Amino acid sequence: MRIGELPTPAAVVDLDVLQRNLSRMAQRAAALGVALRPHFKTHKCVEVARLQSACGVRGFTVSTLAEARALLAAGFGDLVWAVPLSPGRLDEACLLARKAEHFAFLVDSPEASDSLDARGRRAAERHEVLLEVDCGYHRSGVDPGAGESVALAERLAAARGLSFRGLLTHAGHAYACRDRRGAEAVAAEEREVTVGFAQRLREEGVAVEQVSVGSTPTVLAADHLRGVTEVRPGNYVFFDAFQAAIGSCTLADCAFTVLATVTSANGKEGRFALDAGALALSKDPGPVHVDPRCGFGVLLPGEGGAPLHDLVLAALSQEHGHGRTRPGREKPPQVGDRIRVIPNHSCLAAAAFETFYAVQAGEVVELWHPARGW
Amino acid sequence: MRIGELPTPAAVVDLDVLQRNLSRMAQRAAALGVALRPHFKTHKCVEVARLQSACGVRGFTVSTLAEARALLAAGFGDLVWAVPLSPGRLDEACLLARKAEHFAFLVDSPEASDSLDARGRRAAERHEVLLEVDCGYHRSGVDPGAGESVALAERLAAARGLSFRGLLTHAGHAYACRDRRGAEAVAAEEREVTVGFAQRLREEGVAVEQVSVGSTPTVLAADHLRGVTEVRPGNYVFFDAFQAAIGSCTLADCAFTVLATVTSANGKEGRFALDAGALALSKDPGPVHVDPRCGFGVLLPGEGGAPLHDLVLAALSQEHGHGRTRPGREKPPQVGDRIRVIPNHSCLAAAAFETFYAVQAGEVVELWHPARGW
Repeated sequence: MRIGELPTPAAVVDLDVLQRNLSRMAQRAAALGVALRPHFKTHKCVEVARLQSACGVRGFTVSTLAEARALLAAGFGDLVWAVPLSPGRLDEACLLARKAEHFAFLVDSPEASDSLDARGRRAAERHEVLLEVDCGYHRSGVDPGAGESVALAERLAAARGLSFRGLLTHAGHAYACRDRRGAEAVAAEEREVTVGFAQRLREEGVAVEQVSVGSTPTVLAADHLRGVTEVRPGNYVFFDAFQAAIGSCTLADCAFTVLATVTSANGKEGRFALDAGALALSKDPGPVHVDPRCGFGVLLPGEGGAPLHDLVLAALSQEHGHGRTRPGREKPPQVGDRIRVIPNHSCLAAAAFETFYAVQAGEVVELWHPARGW
Repeated sequence: MRIGELPTPAAVVDLDVLQRNLSRMAQRAAALGVALRPHFKTHKCVEVARLQSACGVRGFTVSTLAEARALLAAGFGDLVWAVPLSPGRLDEACLLARKAEHFAFLVDSPEASDSLDARGRRAAERHEVLLEVDCGYHRSGVDPGAGESVALAERLAAARGLSFRGLLTHAGHAYACRDRRGAEAVAAEEREVTVGFAQRLREEGVAVEQVSVGSTPTVLAADHLRGVTEVRPGNYVFFDAFQAAIGSCTLADCAFTVLATVTSANGKEGRFALDAGALALSKDPGPVHVDPRCGFGVLLPGEGGAPLHDLVLAALSQEHGHGRTRPGREKPPQVGDRIRVIPNHSCLAAAAFETFYAVQAGEVVELWHPARGW
């Protein structure tokens, strides 16, 4: 089966580009002297996890229990559930954790900490736990400058139902950067805040074994990661149009594309429609802070090749991509033409598909089925 | 099982509100003197299709072949595939069409028309076909003022492999309106353009049986629909925060919510995190033209009740909703609290879930499993 024969919309992964991305990140983590615990949320495929494992990866990061179930079923037993524990999912998560060699929970509140501790004590277990630190993203995590954050760490360390492993942070604000230099500054902040807080805890007598940081932009931009024990990039496996715009990669590094077909074209007005819309690509607006007219992805010819910068995916409705020609191009593609879209956000686009077609030299060589849902 | 016991994030459908929406739209179509062919793409559940059928619906509109498969398997045999035919899916669609009593394709180009005709002639079949008309949305559809559009209709009517049924349009630009009055003007344009083009074709000797229009805002706002034969609203089953903002409904009419749990809260800074993010709610920006600070949905207490207008869902990452308090409220909700989110765009949010919990008076009474993918 060749790319040209796939029904559209289709999720296509370029296996050679993927492999290159995996190798480079493994080398990068080794050069930085940190363990690589990739985030599974981008691809959610055990087949990709196996390729990562072949590059030396020993543990994974997950965002959902569905991802944890998939990895555990495939024999990957060292997991960090890197979103703050949702109290209603506690029983289910603890049952999953029993199947794992290591399963670390993330908390940033006394409420979550106490409920996890209570459950551990009831079952005479110790649940591994990490404390989330806010390094400037302001999404979740404790304030590293607040005394109550030290108190929470002490509470975790003293709890008989818990095994306190250390600190975790995510510098999501790196995505607001415009280039590699900006990400380098955020990476330094991410490291300094977290390593500094670990140091403060150690001075207070709290053992901090793990210092886990990382996003794809900050890991790639970091000058050094002294004091950090592991990084958790996810997006680097596929990259996407956003990462290319902020300098994390080139467009040629983007391994995940959505293959689409032109279903309508108005030659006079330069508009066309694709059979890939908001459900296939997500409505992630992309790097509008770098290019306000970036549209909903970068378009390539169906068989691959140089980006079609004279076309823009201007809007999305549920099952339609609304294409337009840019100045310099007269006519849109024709009905029946194939287009590949590098999505703005590959994690969200990939999550829409039940099958990924892994291709090499235009030939489909494997079918992958990502975990879905929660 | 009660709402309070559901694992989050969860897709919850209020059955009483849904039933009221279905009845009202059936009455509305009857009052307008048109057939109601609801769009299946919003809910994708055969259980909801059965409730619509009980309200008098005879045929459905679909956006994907996956939706068509689900409806055909459930015994609904009168379908319109209301996106322009994607040439690569032609064989599959024609095999599905054989299982249907009526299966109408949509085209707006000679390329699609000719390929459908050729396939019909080869198999000695006549494929039902509608011509898409652009009534001002400029997504797809032929220009009703162009001579070549008349020529395409004549070509469809003359093709031996096709059975030309009529015209179809969608006034998606109604979503750019700020209120019911604006939608009324778009509804008039939608009707006039399409009925006018039908009239022109009839004058040219082309029989036009079907004149199919409709979106939820225009069907609800239309003054009259003389000359129209059917309407295809979809969103009205669930409604959402967008429809409420532009006056199609009230927030109390919104039948679909995403139940979430507060997983992080910073009392001093007024921020909190939900375990429902971009994958559960979609990154649809919502009615920013009406309220630039609308956020990613309207929040309600977990058990239902009056909207929490003093909270805003300011941003979404993959599995986190980033909540903030608004002026007038001091503290965010607490970790463990339940929140229901009326999403900006229920069609996109609903498509993320593999199970819908249908509830009545807080009790789960049915589980529904929507069709997914393509």
